[in-house]
Amino acid sequence: MSAPTGSHLIDGKWVAGSAGGAGFTAVNPATGQMIAPTYHDAGTTDVEAAVAAALRAFEATRSLPPRWPVALLEALTEKIMAMGDALLERVETETALPRPRTTGERGRTCFQLKQLADFVRDGSWVEATIDRADPARQPLPKPDLRRMLQPLGPVVVFDASNFPLAYGVLGNDTASALAAGNPVIVKVHPSHPGSAELLAQAALAALEACNLPRGLIQVLFGRGNDLGAALAKHPGVEAIGFTGSLRGGRALFDLAAARPRPIPVYAEMGSLNPVVLLPGALTERGDAIADGLSKSVSLGGGQFCTKPGIVMLIDGPASDAFVATLHRHLSAVPPVNMLNLSLRDGFARATDRIAATPGVKATLSRQTPGYAGSTAALYETTGKAWREQEGLREEAFGPGTVVVRCKDADDLDAALRSAPGSLTGAVHVGAADKQTDVQRVMRSLARFAGRVIVNGFPTGVEVTHAMVHGGPYPATTAPATTSVGTLSIRRFARPVAYQDTPDQFLPPELKDSNPLGIDRHVDGKPTRDPLSSR
Amino acid sequence: MSAPTGSHLIDGKWVAGSAGGAGFTAVNPATGQMIAPTYHDAGTTDVEAAVAAALRAFEATRSLPPRWPVALLEALTEKIMAMGDALLERVETETALPRPRTTGERGRTCFQLKQLADFVRDGSWVEATIDRADPARQPLPKPDLRRMLQPLGPVVVFDASNFPLAYGVLGNDTASALAAGNPVIVKVHPSHPGSAELLAQAALAALEACNLPRGLIQVLFGRGNDLGAALAKHPGVEAIGFTGSLRGGRALFDLAAARPRPIPVYAEMGSLNPVVLLPGALTERGDAIADGLSKSVSLGGGQFCTKPGIVMLIDGPASDAFVATLHRHLSAVPPVNMLNLSLRDGFARATDRIAATPGVKATLSRQTPGYAGSTAALYETTGKAWREQEGLREEAFGPGTVVVRCKDADDLDAALRSAPGSLTGAVHVGAADKQTDVQRVMRSLARFAGRVIVNGFPTGVEVTHAMVHGGPYPATTAPATTSVGTLSIRRFARPVAYQDTPDQFLPPELKDSNPLGIDRHVDGKPTRDPLSSR
Repeated sequence: MSAPTGSHLIDGKWVAGSAGGAGFTAVNPATGQMIAPTYHDAGTTDVEAAVAAALRAFEATRSLPPRWPVALLEALTEKIMAMGDALLERVETETALPRPRTTGERGRTCFQLKQLADFVRDGSWVEATIDRADPARQPLPKPDLRRMLQPLGPVVVFDASNFPLAYGVLGNDTASALAAGNPVIVKVHPSHPGSAELLAQAALAALEACNLPRGLIQVLFGRGNDLGAALAKHPGVEAIGFTGSLRGGRALFDLAAARPRPIPVYAEMGSLNPVVLLPGALTERGDAIADGLSKSVSLGGGQFCTKPGIVMLIDGPASDAFVATLHRHLSAVPPVNMLNLSLRDGFARATDRIAATPGVKATLSRQTPGYAGSTAALYETTGKAWREQEGLREEAFGPGTVVVRCKDADDLDAALRSAPGSLTGAVHVGAADKQTDVQRVMRSLARFAGRVIVNGFPTGVEVTHAMVHGGPYPATTAPATTSVGTLSIRRFARPVAYQDTPDQFLPPELKDSNPLGIDRHVDGKPTRDPLSSR
Repeated sequence: MSAPTGSHLIDGKWVAGSAGGAGFTAVNPATGQMIAPTYHDAGTTDVEAAVAAALRAFEATRSLPPRWPVALLEALTEKIMAMGDALLERVETETALPRPRTTGERGRTCFQLKQLADFVRDGSWVEATIDRADPARQPLPKPDLRRMLQPLGPVVVFDASNFPLAYGVLGNDTASALAAGNPVIVKVHPSHPGSAELLAQAALAALEACNLPRGLIQVLFGRGNDLGAALAKHPGVEAIGFTGSLRGGRALFDLAAARPRPIPVYAEMGSLNPVVLLPGALTERGDAIADGLSKSVSLGGGQFCTKPGIVMLIDGPASDAFVATLHRHLSAVPPVNMLNLSLRDGFARATDRIAATPGVKATLSRQTPGYAGSTAALYETTGKAWREQEGLREEAFGPGTVVVRCKDADDLDAALRSAPGSLTGAVHVGAADKQTDVQRVMRSLARFAGRVIVNGFPTGVEVTHAMVHGGPYPATTAPATTSVGTLSIRRFARPVAYQDTPDQFLPPELKDSNPLGIDRHVDGKPTRDPLSSR
């Protein structure tokens, strides 16, 4: 690797952005100092060149053997690890994230790539489904039909500010789009361009090592909205992956929906992640829950899309003590340097808004020490105020949470019905809580959340087959999908059916002999067996 | 059953539409005569009542045992068949479809319902996926995660004009939405209201027989766009299914995307369904292909979304004879009464537009005998004109097709690259055609179509697991989905993950013992076995 030079990666070449202007640099969130080099926004010619290269790469890969993404995904992990501490140091300078976090995030990034490589190597993800012909059927013969998932074409990925590695240039959106066989153009988040350029170096090295078209991974930089909008509107682009704010995700969704030919936008946006504490749980282990909750609220400076932004409980003997303990824990959280000034200011505005909402009490007020620093915040309100004050349903991205004190089980039920779409919903249950009460809460959580957690906190997002990191709007723009875990690959593929197609013209996944040995469904039954006869 | 009375079905009650006005009736497309009764549009209060009842029904069904839709889907087939010929007669009066077609369509409607009942009974459709915990994992314990598909909530289905039964009140959109566990509100197409009211009677009878909430199937009538728009914008509605015109589907898509909380629109719209005839196939069996093609173009008056609207071939010795034979077959097609005057006029406008396009020759001009009648039409053009004249890429819904005569294989390749998203793409291959040429065409077809057909015609849509009746825009607004076949159920469900959830609080599909005996994935491997231990 070499030091970042302020270059975009287009079709395997390092180029300066064509949009001109003064350019921008990263800013160290701990000190406010600018970090070289300067990046100039990608312009129209860069976008045209990148999309054209992506289309050529897509066409070239369509005649490669299946499973070609496996080698690329594995090479990416190698090239990331080969950068060693220099990559972590650059990330830390641009984000103020501490070493344990950057090390962990790099491990997760590589794990995601490897897990998807294994998933593609297994090959069953294409959902090969075969319904055999019946030439004797009356009144008409039944044709042979076989379907499988196929890639869409060029995908644009918006790098997220809060996970520069795991949701970054080579994060899970890129990994899952590549795994499905799509070229990717990444639009870098302007708060960590140097980290992104290093990852682009890893991408190019991996493409070269695998001798794959350089247009498969391209990386563009830009500060305003123009670059993202140009990519989202380009007729050669087939889908968009985004992780970030509700405002940004919705703007992309609106642009993509207004295209002459609309395309899907998989935007993962704001989320309140309600945590419900049932009375039995509060009585039995209120202190332990307060401890766990404070850690979940303040983890990574509260800059997780899964941070619990709302805690719902029924007022009772244990709740005052619980809130006091939670206050004590959050007061003890040291100030954190947030990822950038814009996030710090956003959190300040959001907490000011919450504090000024009728019916809300500021139990622990947020301070803003240093250049982009913040302390933790805690607010209390009632079930009634929560239901009536729509402003409380907006995410405050940072180390703060709001405790909603409900009068009784019905008030809690009504509060849950007012919850907007969310990535997660959690409930803490004690031995004394009635099973029917638990079930009622769980049904409510499953109604608005993508992931329901019992006796735990939502911040950790496990990278597995069963993970759903998604949920109804405004958590995402595509509630039937996930942006983490192997199911994420399905966002970037669509089913194609082949009717009465001679074996020699079928993709290997659908041939009689099942040459790849994948799981298939034949006449509705799962099997790995070859077809006995046609 | 009783004769239609002009009533909407809301929460199990027959009510008059609240929007007032003069109302409308069906019109016999063979005679132009109005058919009693008169229907008055559903108004705002009807929409509010229907959505409220759907939400109550959804809530009530969430605590029923899994697989509850099975009995309902089966009861619907019984109640449809119990109406006997009276249903078919009403459909024929309102649509001019002949008895073999209505009988066949009724059979398909019941088959769809039964197939989805079997699919839900099997239970594996929920994609139950379990990743077991690893409490010993370092640095953090791995949680238990389990996911499955769950229903969305109230779905609005727009009844299609061209398949009053199979895509009607109890057609596949309704069947697949119910199968996934969602309540359905149907907005009836105004050209066959009496048929729709009879189907609503069957729906109510089935709900009563199964003792299920009456809000699960509701049926509203309206002539303008107001009713559809009110339903699409209602905050209680979670998804929309639509089959019809590009204009109508796009309008709904735009409305749904502009909602404060956008919802998915599964619109199946216009499609050109290109058929490619390779030189070897033309030489070896041009006459047989002309015969089959003319039947596919004129089937059901060309009023199939899978009608071949474009035929692409390479000019050569066999092509003149082929076009002459195709002309002879299409000239012999008797005039057809189209489904309604609006479709007949739409086809007349579309064929006038094609005939007036530079570079197009009218080989067989369309006539419009009788009230809503039309004859077949045939046009010829060049590869160059096809690429340059965007108007040729719009569907002409009716018994007509355009032959694109390409100069050579490269001209054909360029023509295929200009094809818009389509439900299907077909290729006819002869022994003399080179394998690489076939593969090039098939890759192009798979790029723009949901279903690729070899040596066949696209009109027949088989109702199977492997069917994809979908495709890139403008064929649909959701290219990753199908509106026919069992995969259609996935449109109306989303995954929900459960983390560290005690067995007693898990849905049956995810419990350790696998009490439903469904196919699941455990730690990435397919199995029906119960979990040995937690």
